[in-house]
Amino acid sequence: MNQLFLLASRPDGVPEPANFQLVEAPVPELAEGQVLLENHYLSVDPYMRGRISTAKSYAKPVELGEVMTGTGVGRVAASRHERFVAGDIAVGLTGWQRYAVVDGSQLRKFDAALVPISTALGVLGMPGLTAYFGLTDVCAARPGETVMVSGAAGAVGSYVGQMARILGCRVVGSAGGPEKVRHVLEDLGFEGAFDYKGTSDLNGVLKGLCPNGIDCYFDNTGGAVTDAVFRRINTGARIAICGQIASYNAVAEDYGPRIFRTLLVKQARVQGFLVNQYKDRYREAYPKIGEWLRSGSLTYRETIVEGFEKMPEAFIGLFSGQNLGKMLVKVV
Amino acid sequence: MNQLFLLASRPDGVPEPANFQLVEAPVPELAEGQVLLENHYLSVDPYMRGRISTAKSYAKPVELGEVMTGTGVGRVAASRHERFVAGDIAVGLTGWQRYAVVDGSQLRKFDAALVPISTALGVLGMPGLTAYFGLTDVCAARPGETVMVSGAAGAVGSYVGQMARILGCRVVGSAGGPEKVRHVLEDLGFEGAFDYKGTSDLNGVLKGLCPNGIDCYFDNTGGAVTDAVFRRINTGARIAICGQIASYNAVAEDYGPRIFRTLLVKQARVQGFLVNQYKDRYREAYPKIGEWLRSGSLTYRETIVEGFEKMPEAFIGLFSGQNLGKMLVKVV
Repeated sequence: MNQLFLLASRPDGVPEPANFQLVEAPVPELAEGQVLLENHYLSVDPYMRGRISTAKSYAKPVELGEVMTGTGVGRVAASRHERFVAGDIAVGLTGWQRYAVVDGSQLRKFDAALVPISTALGVLGMPGLTAYFGLTDVCAARPGETVMVSGAAGAVGSYVGQMARILGCRVVGSAGGPEKVRHVLEDLGFEGAFDYKGTSDLNGVLKGLCPNGIDCYFDNTGGAVTDAVFRRINTGARIAICGQIASYNAVAEDYGPRIFRTLLVKQARVQGFLVNQYKDRYREAYPKIGEWLRSGSLTYRETIVEGFEKMPEAFIGLFSGQNLGKMLVKVV
Repeated sequence: MNQLFLLASRPDGVPEPANFQLVEAPVPELAEGQVLLENHYLSVDPYMRGRISTAKSYAKPVELGEVMTGTGVGRVAASRHERFVAGDIAVGLTGWQRYAVVDGSQLRKFDAALVPISTALGVLGMPGLTAYFGLTDVCAARPGETVMVSGAAGAVGSYVGQMARILGCRVVGSAGGPEKVRHVLEDLGFEGAFDYKGTSDLNGVLKGLCPNGIDCYFDNTGGAVTDAVFRRINTGARIAICGQIASYNAVAEDYGPRIFRTLLVKQARVQGFLVNQYKDRYREAYPKIGEWLRSGSLTYRETIVEGFEKMPEAFIGLFSGQNLGKMLVKVV
């Protein structure tokens, strides 16, 4: 029997375990072109909050009673697709289930010879690509510039900061709590970092950490940190909006300082982006990220929750910052 | 004797006539390389509000007791610069004065054979270039797209809307009052327009006028119109922030709905710009604008206040929307 999580109800604010229902079902027969994947790791990501809401977004929401959406990596258990044989390691949009029947054309083979397969969901997966294109294309960061990253201890943020350092930028980040700040400074090599939860004077802290202003801002969180960053941006600044986790669970409209006057005075640009805008260029990113991993200049952390039944718990933990680096569930 | 306006005090909120002091002074002798320009028209523009404030901006503020900054066009009365002779028509940053001594290298000769010289301050000057580059480069408007313009009856807005129409876009605009709305629809050929002052349901009005959403937004005003536009933008929308006249006189911080989540969901871009970012490309714009004027596809209006002594009045009138098209002072 397979196990899977259905969307049982829509959250009103922060998601709760009861929004997801664990059910058992037989594994379907494979049709021609399909592959049966046995998930080893499943990803939980902030973007999933949008998929379980009916608010307008870039993708249609998961319907009540449908399998919860998400990406998994694992071993091919059976294949009726010419590119896959049993035993291959592959990654794809499997949903929250132990076994998934996926169209082979939607599955990517993953070379796990040199790296753990879990990286297919992190630094060598969607979050790594998001960091790479957001930093190099949306922010268009240049050597010597100051790059600020919110959510710096999360998956995307931790990659962005390190990639910016590799590109010769001066990197500053925000994170939630002293242990994350320590990690960002000592393990990831940021030049500056601050605990947004423990700071009452965000403007003062940013001024101290970014004495020459901010040229690029990679925003994973939104909220008060983002408002403060706009007070420190330089002429010609580029701001990439990648995530707004601070407001994903908001029940009222989100108000704050209007940024238009600042954009005008600073001739600055703010751009929201999704990684799949870059799908024609993924091939250029993988070898670069791989090279940085091999050389040791890029490292990664994972927060691994063990047990398929803990999927909802792991997902909900994202919103209180339970993760250092990539949050994953190991399907045991 | 020359007459000139000095900045006497800084406004707190909306500027008042007493912020400017009319004084008389002898016309200085010309040094080598200088030109004496007798102004025929002087421009008043919303951007000048920023120059008389001490708030951080892209240019240093006018100091108290200094000549008020601004552009004028007129006749060369005397020249010690090789490119100019008495009788030439020229335009430059003269400040608010009847006679200005200007470095010849900072003056642009203006060909008034086919067009009135006042156009050097409007459609064939800074506002025209602002419209052209903001629309074609910052917004990157494409045929068939819906372009929304705020301040559509003002100088820049009226050019933007007509240029967008010429480029094959569907154009909608906002303006203050029924007469301006009539002008925008009947004289300028917008497909839709609304009176933002007479509208309580901006969201509903925009929905009706832009049934297919908004692809490009050229913002001259900011305020509630801009907030409503963000609720209607399409995926991949481009927003050019050119002016924020609604908040130039604000004394408190400007609050409104945060736009970051919308930018993310819509993969949209907002960019503040100044026309002088494009100074290396002015030459490509002039012939196009001139061609549109000659063919009659682009028209312009001017609101001309007569009398040099009325400079402050004309300037202050911008903030209550006294102008249709370009606001000018005729130096008589």
